[in-house]
This record gives sequence, C-alpha cells and structure tokens, in this order.
Amino acid sequence: MEKIVASIITIGDELLIGQVVDTNSAWMGQELNKNGIWVGRRVAVGDVREDIWQALDQEFQRTQIILITGGLGPTADDITKPLLCDYFGGKLVVDPGALDNVKKIFARLQRPMIDRNLQQAEVPDVCTVIPNHRGTAPGMWFEKEGRIFVSMPGVPHEMKGMMTDSVIPALRQRFRLPFIAHRTLLTAGIGESFLAEHIKDFEATLPASIKMAYLPNYGMVRLRLTIQGEDPVAMETLLQERFDTLKGLVAEWMVTDEDISLQAAIGRLLRSRGQTLATAESCTGGYIAHLITSIPGSSHYFKGSVVSYDNEVKKKMLHVAPQTLEQHGAVSQATVEEMVKGALAQLDTDFVIATSGIMGPDGGSPEKPVGTVWIAVGNHQQVQSQQFSFRFDRLRNIELAATNALNLLRKFILSAS
Amino acid sequence: MEKIVASIITIGDELLIGQVVDTNSAWMGQELNKNGIWVGRRVAVGDVREDIWQALDQEFQRTQIILITGGLGPTADDITKPLLCDYFGGKLVVDPGALDNVKKIFARLQRPMIDRNLQQAEVPDVCTVIPNHRGTAPGMWFEKEGRIFVSMPGVPHEMKGMMTDSVIPALRQRFRLPFIAHRTLLTAGIGESFLAEHIKDFEATLPASIKMAYLPNYGMVRLRLTIQGEDPVAMETLLQERFDTLKGLVAEWMVTDEDISLQAAIGRLLRSRGQTLATAESCTGGYIAHLITSIPGSSHYFKGSVVSYDNEVKKKMLHVAPQTLEQHGAVSQATVEEMVKGALAQLDTDFVIATSGIMGPDGGSPEKPVGTVWIAVGNHQQVQSQQFSFRFDRLRNIELAATNALNLLRKFILSAS
Repeated sequence: MEKIVASIITIGDELLIGQVVDTNSAWMGQELNKNGIWVGRRVAVGDVREDIWQALDQEFQRTQIILITGGLGPTADDITKPLLCDYFGGKLVVDPGALDNVKKIFARLQRPMIDRNLQQAEVPDVCTVIPNHRGTAPGMWFEKEGRIFVSMPGVPHEMKGMMTDSVIPALRQRFRLPFIAHRTLLTAGIGESFLAEHIKDFEATLPASIKMAYLPNYGMVRLRLTIQGEDPVAMETLLQERFDTLKGLVAEWMVTDEDISLQAAIGRLLRSRGQTLATAESCTGGYIAHLITSIPGSSHYFKGSVVSYDNEVKKKMLHVAPQTLEQHGAVSQATVEEMVKGALAQLDTDFVIATSGIMGPDGGSPEKPVGTVWIAVGNHQQVQSQQFSFRFDRLRNIELAATNALNLLRKFILSAS
Repeated sequence: MEKIVASIITIGDELLIGQVVDTNSAWMGQELNKNGIWVGRRVAVGDVREDIWQALDQEFQRTQIILITGGLGPTADDITKPLLCDYFGGKLVVDPGALDNVKKIFARLQRPMIDRNLQQAEVPDVCTVIPNHRGTAPGMWFEKEGRIFVSMPGVPHEMKGMMTDSVIPALRQRFRLPFIAHRTLLTAGIGESFLAEHIKDFEATLPASIKMAYLPNYGMVRLRLTIQGEDPVAMETLLQERFDTLKGLVAEWMVTDEDISLQAAIGRLLRSRGQTLATAESCTGGYIAHLITSIPGSSHYFKGSVVSYDNEVKKKMLHVAPQTLEQHGAVSQATVEEMVKGALAQLDTDFVIATSGIMGPDGGSPEKPVGTVWIAVGNHQQVQSQQFSFRFDRLRNIELAATNALNLLRKFILSAS
C-alpha cells in the first residue's frame, strides 16, 4: 500500500519572530497521524510572497497533500489569498456561501460590518470553498497535477473545526489510507538513557513494522510504539503483544498505559475509587489545581484548593502553627505536613497535596537555594513528604514541582488501598 | 547593510506526529530577532536521514546561518550526529571537554554511567564543540562555504543556555548586524479588524523602514512596530515618535505599552500602589492564580486563592450563603459577588477576582449553556460583575475567562484610584 505523506506550511511573521508558539502544527500532526497520513515535513515562512511561493513549490515536489494555515486574517499583513490566486491561476470572486457566513456572524455578534470583513468572503475561482463554522475566513481546497493544497485560517479553533468537519473526511474519501496504530505508556522516576538501557533487548528485537519513540516530558518519559501495515487485525494483535511485553519490562515506573496525562490518570483512579482530592499550594501557586481541573469531569473528585502564597493565609486558612513557620520557615517539611493536615480538615477530602518552595529567580539563600521545594501528600491516616531541588527557570520549576507532586500522590493513593 | 538571515531546522518524529509542541523555535526566533538576525524560515523534519540531509541542503541555498535543534539525545532514535559527520565530511571522535562534562554531571547526580552516556561525548572532528553546561549532549558549530551550521540538543533549557552563553555571542562577533528595534503594546476589548480599521490611516503613512504586525491572543490584540536600519539614534527616535502616535490612537483599549503580559502589567500596577490581590476561583480552577504567580516577585502583592470547585468549599471557606447557591445556583451574579466579599474578608487583600462558570464539555443546561461564566472584581468599597459566554473547548474557555477576569480587574484598579 502506498504511504500517504503530507506537508504542513504555516504562514506568518509572528511565528518566525517567536511572538506566537505554533500549536496548530502539533494538533494537525496528531489528527493526520490518527488517520494514517504521515506528516513528512513542516515549514514555517513569513508574510513574504517569494518565501510562500518557494515553500509551495518545494512541498509540491515532495508530497501529495499540502496543508497551509495562516495568512487569511482581515488585516493588511495578510497576503496569502491573492498569492494562492496567482499560484493556481484564478481570480478573486465573492463566494455567496462565505458572504452569508460573514453576515450571519456579525449579526449574531450584533456588530457593524466593514469592507475588510466583506473581503473575507472573496476566494479564488479555482478553489472549492471549505465552510468555516467558527469564523469569517473560508478555507480553500485546490488541486494541481494530482496534489491537494488546503488553505485554512491560523486561528486554532477555526482551523481545528475545518479539519474535523471537512478536510479529514475529504482526505479519507480520496485516499486508501494504510492502517496505523499507536500504543503509548507514561513512565516517571527513570531517566531516558536508563530506560533505553533497560529495554534495549526489547527494542532490538522489534519487528520492522513497529517503531518505538522516547518522548521525555518534565521528568517523565513517554514510550510510544507505532505500527503501520495492511491488515488491521494482525497488526493490532502484534502491536498489543509487544506492548504487553514492554509494560511488563517497565512496570516499576509505569504511570499509565494510555496516552493520557498524569492528571488524567489520577482523575480516573480517584473516580473509580469514589475518593476526593484537594491541594494546598504555596510555590506552585494554583498550577496543580489548574492541571487537575483542566480534565473534564474533575468536579467529581476535586473539591478545591487553598493557594497560600502568603504566610498569613497558611495560618488562617490552613491552620499552620505560627511557631512552625518561625522555627522551620515556610519552605520546610514541618510546614508542608501541617498544610496537608489543615487542608484535609478544612476541605474535607480523602487526599491532599501540599507544596512549598522557592521558585526563583529571587528568594534563595545558602541553606535553601532557588529550586528547593518540599512536597507532602497525605490522607486522614498518614502524611508523607519529600524534598526536591530543581535547577531551572521559574516556570519550569513550577511545572516540575507540580509533576512530581502529582506522581507522589499517585503512588500514595495506590499504596493507601 | 547586509540583512543577516537565519533558518531553523528542528529534528524529531515527535514534532511531526504532534506529541510535542515546538516551543524552541519561538524562543530562538525572539532571541535572534533581538540581535538583528531575521529568521527567514523554519523547517521541521523527522528522524529520517534523507529528509534531514535535504533540509540542510535547502537551507544552505537560502541563508548564511542554519540553527539545528534536536536529534542528539542518548537513545537509539537519534541519528543526527552521524549524519552531520557525513554531511561535513568528518569522523566521530571523543571530545575530552565533553567527556569531562558528562562525567561531572553523573558524579553530581550520583548516578552510574553507561556506554550510551559516554557516546554523548563523541563529536565529528570537523566541528567546534559548544559546551553544554546544563546537560550531556555537546553542541556543534560547523562551517561550509561561508555558511554557519550550529547543532544543539532539543531539550529546551539546554538549547537556551547554549544559545545565550555561546551561539549568540559568537554570531554577534562574526557579523556586522543591522539595528532592529521593536515597540509593542497590548489592547483588549476590540477585535482585530476593528482595530485595523481604526488605525488604517496611521498604517498607510508608516515609513518603509517600519513594519506593523497584529498579534491576536485570547481576545486581546498585540500591536508591534518594528524598525530596521543603519543609524540607531535616528531609528529609535523615528520609532518612538510613531509609537507615541499609535498609543494615542488606541488609548481607549491599551492594556500596556510594553511587551509584557496582562498579569505582569497588573503586577506592576499593584506593586507601584502597594496594594494586594487574592482570587476566589471556581471555573478557572486556579489558573488565574497560576498566571499571577508565574510572574517573579508576585509574592509582593499576591496573597493567595481559594479554589472553590465544590459548593461546600464556597460556603465554608468563602462564606457564600447556602440560600444564594440554592436560589441562584453556583454560576450566578449573586454567587460570584459573595465570593468576592468572602475572599476580601478571609484573605484580607485590597482586591479580589472571583469566577464561576461552566467550562464544558458537560454541565450545560438550556438556561446556562456551556461557556456561561460570571466574573466579579471588587475591593472593600464596591463589587462589579459581568456575565460572559465563551464558545470554545474547555481549556480555551478557562484561558478566556482568566484573561477577561484579569482585564476587568485592571480596569477596576485604575477606576478605584
């Protein structure tokens, strides 16, 4: 079976100058992959006519499917649409469906419309219009010598809607796609190179149809097996068999055997046990609560958090003893353990995570340098705590503290059963 | 003066399959730009020898500086180093400095070393080694027919350290860089196309040396003016003059005239006034507290938060009346206003933000569909509240609620003076 390969071209000076992080490409890569289309290459170019033209030419040489995002907004720095018109040899005409869509959106928003907005309904007469149910800029589907070019807006939710509603279904209809399947597991507490050493025999004996990838992420490593082939049943069986072997090999460090986050795995655990959680956060500043509540349905097991950034809040809301703070300081084992106990009593949950540390860049001392973090987890029977030292910038220290706290909690919940 | 242009090549299947979002390129774009180097293009390719080779060839044709990240880790899916060795015609040799670095890191971590780790000290004998002070994989600087190729690890903090310590200084020494300056302001409460319409005369009369960009971001729009030229003094004067005009034109919607986030702008405002803040978050689940505490020094003005996901927590910790929750529901004006009052009393701050809403995908009703959010801000004198309707996915609804809450707070602080 032919391997179907796509290229992604993203357009916009804001990507090259680094004012915007390109999250669109990652999402598109995931969706295409799930549907058996490999992304061979991603190119980002600025709002420069020659550069966009060259990128179209280069990807035209390489691949059958070229997905383009960006450069379709209403403001003057967007030059993509006239360029596509020239590239495919058409002229701009008003599309009645797109015009109707623009008018409807402005009527719903109860906003007046200006010429700039109406221009969004213009498309090259050599494309098939892809409706945009979430914004004013229509998508465009072009074909040239057997290659497919799809141009979409750069606004993430508009692009995602268009891909899901129209582009993926049309590509599925057009190509006979190979069977691709993935199995992913998440490990914590072991470095990438040690993991690789531990499973090198397994890796060496994988069949050619299966590829393994190491994906390090905040002190954790995700392992992914990918199979591609003709026969779904045989492939699924082979993949599952190898995945089960891998799970056995890394059982000691495995957090979850699904492609979900640590916080989603904890959510499932708590929901299945009918238990509840709260956090008492100092240095993580609400980030752990945010990770937990980013999971749909988290209200079933998460009651809330006391972010006690100030010591007065630790005393008043979490009943940390003033003498504990005086004798040991806010960043201490005694303080985080009292935070756990206070939150258990105040928020009345089965489990609590507490954090206190110095995230930097300021606030460190010789005894407690920047990156020193105490984390405690507990239930009404017992409290466990551990000290960490992170050596990164403020945001990464916060992220690492949150990840380590969630992993301590996961192990604590499992041991508390 | 010659315009110095760089290309960025990122290597790794994980980028194409979308399991990792490429934040490195955005950071590199920012740093290069600050130093007068334009990023002309970014290319991401997988761990495929021919694709990497082709990318090197293509960028070699285009630009003088090619920065490469990724593909240098200790695991078997990394093929970059042998390829670079072939591309530049060298052979792999152990670099004593890099070996010493690997040994030191393992000694500090008190971990045993394995062959895989020692291999990290091997480099092509045709490169100049760039020391890695944050990890085991050394960077490599190659030159070929006047072009510079720099290969760095994909681990963000290792790459960033190498760029800052070695690569940027070396490039500055090598090239006579043009003068580039930016001015950025942040607006809220006006859409991109209306902003464009409002300032179209200003934009039309900008000198050729100044470029303007619209950067939409979570219901806000950032406007950036960029100037490039020979004479720093004249350029700075011209840029500042045009920027001052722009500021006057958008004064009504301007959040800050610096390239900082809304939460950083609020932090400065509170610090300059010696006032304090707390949050009482239901639907935002701690995300507002996280945004605020991601700013260094936020402990000077942020006391903490009660994340009251559960109604029991709203009653117990924020003293929301049970009859308010019964009569109006948790997502109501009455509830968020009581949350503000409760948090003001409990956390004893000058200002409080409170949120309550339905973020989806579940939990909506005909009267209160998914995306319905009440936000209140207040001080000890008064409380203001507003209802919002967001129509996106859970995470984006949370982000939009947080952004709007922070902007309401900013306006409230300014009006409370």
